Amino acid sequence: MAGGNQVRRWWWDWAPVLRVLSLLWLVLAVFMLVPWLVLHFEGDADTHAFGLALVVLLVTVSLSWWLTRGVHIALKTQQMFVLTTLSWLSICAFASLPLVFGVPELGITDAFFESVSAVTTTGSTVLSGIEHLSDGIKLWRGLMQWMGGIGIIVMGIAILPFLKVGGMRLFQTESSDWSDKVLPRTGGIAQASLGIYVGVTLLAMLSYWLGGMQPLDAVVHAMTSVATGGFANSDASFGAYSDQPHLIWMGTLFMLCGSLPFVLYIRCLRGSPKALWRDEQVRGLLILLVVVVLCITLYRVSRGEAPFMSLTHTAFNVVSVVTTTGYASDDYMQWGPLAVMAFFYLTFVGGCSGSTTGGMKIFRFQISMKMLLSQLRYLIHARGVFVSRFNGLPLSDDVGRGVVAFSFFFFLTIAGLAMALALLGLDYVTALSGAATAVANVGPGLGDVIGPAGNFGTLPDAAKWLLSFGMLLGRLEILTVLVLLTPMFWQK
Amino acid sequence: MAGGNQVRRWWWDWAPVLRVLSLLWLVLAVFMLVPWLVLHFEGDADTHAFGLALVVLLVTVSLSWWLTRGVHIALKTQQMFVLTTLSWLSICAFASLPLVFGVPELGITDAFFESVSAVTTTGSTVLSGIEHLSDGIKLWRGLMQWMGGIGIIVMGIAILPFLKVGGMRLFQTESSDWSDKVLPRTGGIAQASLGIYVGVTLLAMLSYWLGGMQPLDAVVHAMTSVATGGFANSDASFGAYSDQPHLIWMGTLFMLCGSLPFVLYIRCLRGSPKALWRDEQVRGLLILLVVVVLCITLYRVSRGEAPFMSLTHTAFNVVSVVTTTGYASDDYMQWGPLAVMAFFYLTFVGGCSGSTTGGMKIFRFQISMKMLLSQLRYLIHARGVFVSRFNGLPLSDDVGRGVVAFSFFFFLTIAGLAMALALLGLDYVTALSGAATAVANVGPGLGDVIGPAGNFGTLPDAAKWLLSFGMLLGRLEILTVLVLLTPMFWQK
Repeated sequence: MAGGNQVRRWWWDWAPVLRVLSLLWLVLAVFMLVPWLVLHFEGDADTHAFGLALVVLLVTVSLSWWLTRGVHIALKTQQMFVLTTLSWLSICAFASLPLVFGVPELGITDAFFESVSAVTTTGSTVLSGIEHLSDGIKLWRGLMQWMGGIGIIVMGIAILPFLKVGGMRLFQTESSDWSDKVLPRTGGIAQASLGIYVGVTLLAMLSYWLGGMQPLDAVVHAMTSVATGGFANSDASFGAYSDQPHLIWMGTLFMLCGSLPFVLYIRCLRGSPKALWRDEQVRGLLILLVVVVLCITLYRVSRGEAPFMSLTHTAFNVVSVVTTTGYASDDYMQWGPLAVMAFFYLTFVGGCSGSTTGGMKIFRFQISMKMLLSQLRYLIHARGVFVSRFNGLPLSDDVGRGVVAFSFFFFLTIAGLAMALALLGLDYVTALSGAATAVANVGPGLGDVIGPAGNFGTLPDAAKWLLSFGMLLGRLEILTVLVLLTPMFWQK
Repeated sequence: MAGGNQVRRWWWDWAPVLRVLSLLWLVLAVFMLVPWLVLHFEGDADTHAFGLALVVLLVTVSLSWWLTRGVHIALKTQQMFVLTTLSWLSICAFASLPLVFGVPELGITDAFFESVSAVTTTGSTVLSGIEHLSDGIKLWRGLMQWMGGIGIIVMGIAILPFLKVGGMRLFQTESSDWSDKVLPRTGGIAQASLGIYVGVTLLAMLSYWLGGMQPLDAVVHAMTSVATGGFANSDASFGAYSDQPHLIWMGTLFMLCGSLPFVLYIRCLRGSPKALWRDEQVRGLLILLVVVVLCITLYRVSRGEAPFMSLTHTAFNVVSVVTTTGYASDDYMQWGPLAVMAFFYLTFVGGCSGSTTGGMKIFRFQISMKMLLSQLRYLIHARGVFVSRFNGLPLSDDVGRGVVAFSFFFFLTIAGLAMALALLGLDYVTALSGAATAVANVGPGLGDVIGPAGNFGTLPDAAKWLLSFGMLLGRLEILTVLVLLTPMFWQK
């Protein structure tokens, strides 16, 4: 009887997680309907791949929905951690099904890598000859990234701040409890952000289309720009438009739009038009970008390159890497050693919290800098007390510790992953930059193999699984997953 | 009158610094007498180089001693920071004189680089054909490192803990004031450590000599092993003895001796023989070394290399890099990608605080780990209070913040230096590993240019100055120099 009770209690603890998951899978199925309809309309042979994937997905959804009937959805911190991790993992797995069925030469490893890279909005690809894929697969790659982008915004606004992961408590809107009171308000913000997300994406589609892209290309590139995902419809990535500076600049603009905190757009629209510029994160990001773009452009011009095109491509590729989009419009491995080193560092930066970007996020650098300055002050005046502020509010020790823990784990994860990749025989530059680009959800690495002109398809299978794991870890801000691996988490 | 008063006050503030410096320069002159005497006895042409350097040095000492006559030596925190930085900088400059005069083809840049590399016990060299240098120059290279080693121990015991640099307050012996009360006791500890240092070096000389080295080689290698400096008397570094495993193992042992906290040897000798093993730092270092050596040995054996010689050279080179000695007995760039990546990481580690090593030091990793674990605990049980301990004592927030600040500045310094090196045209691997090996005071970098089989002589002059600056910064635990660069430091 005691055993039965235990099983029943376990079920009541975890059934709500399954119920929420099945809702998320249903959303995925709705997204999957789009390429299915398009292919069906075009009479393309890939239709069956999406049909089959939809059947698997809908059967799973129905089964879990039925199993968890009558379960009241109430989630405690412990369940939230598990739910967050499982939702990303399961959506990546289900999202890979159309690739498994539709591009059978890929195999499960490559299909999973591609869908993890898509859903986490990383943008590394194992595919070559992307131009020749069916419209449905192209559309699906874009949709996966766009969907991932929504997921990141919602997670950044509504979940991570309450789980206090990596200093994200800074962005908590009301209280530290995941209680019923907060949900409606947070839900409202999430909903408004979603509206903005859809709006900006439509604007991007229209702009790209008016700028001269084919309709499907405009749709896919708009989705992968705003989601800061970076999948393109050609092996040359955005380089397919390298001689059309107006498209390159549009891309730069829309990646930037995706890398700002979406809640601030709401405030802008609701009557504080300066809200964006007044935000310390936004200002920090823009200043960084302007400085880096100018420096690299000057460096390239000093090496004898044409000023305007240097500026155009430097701005595009720097914004692409900093916002963790991962488009390439040019092979920046050829821009000289300073540029290569700069792109390595930029891989870590990331955009603003509450945007679709990955990486360490600009606010963590800003908070670290403030802490370092106050440490220097402490060395000089041992007895003073110094309070740092962020966006006008005093920084608590709590947030500082979270930021530090995140930064350490971030670099430890990259270091560990690079080590494992080296064990598989990858060279130093590929292993190190591959680990960094995966965990920071950027996309391209450095060097000839996985650089902006390269492709992840040639890596050994084990490396692809490791990198997939790294991308998921990075997307979940590492600590979310790490707590699950501690025995303490599972103790009563 | 007011102006005159200001100048007089300024003089009374800073004259004590000059007086202490002139004492240190006198010690340097005493050391310089040794190679001068040896060369004089041998009738070598290089005698004049040391003679000339001695004259310059003694004139400077006399002048500053006379200028500061009647000055009472009382140093406040501000003066200590300046004195610490200036003493390393000036000793490096004066120590380069015999090289400037004796090896004129070197030029000032190379001579300064070599002496900074020596005195900071880094061990990078610009010289080739070291076998053919005069005995005096060989001896001087060893003596500079040995002297640097003493400097590091004294600084680590008596100065940095009181300046509270980078969490070093952890090793404060009595109180946080640089007062007269503490000085005698600290002085006593420093003196005893020095005795141990001399003893271990003599033991190393004897062992190497009995092991079959030429007397001069035994003397120089003993000094550069215990100082964890890494200068050798041949271009092949310790590889000159690569077929004599007993010498390789002796080298491993003496580098290890130099990397443990010298105060613990005193406690061992004063009746607590287990003091070394009970220390958390020592245990951490030894466990790390055993694990890494075994892993890399297994990896090499799995690649088809001979077990015993693999173990011998792996142990030697791993210990050499972790203790920041920088000898190479073999070109580990040929040991496969895992080994290359491992050596890159090991560059950062360093030995124990209070030893002659550089790098981040093992205690900073241990404290970071403890902080990370307590952060994971906090995510799970938001309301608990967790106190971490180090060597049985509770860790204060103060020490934690210092460790974090040090770690961030350490990586920032390396990143900035690597960027500057890339701007000078150095490739990615050379720039990144060169910056790391300089700031961590290790010696060799990675790649063909500055790797274990390479040499720093081929780098552009600007790179040598940057790397010299990096070695000094690393040796001074970065923060000591950085505070001097803040305007706040110079305000009343």
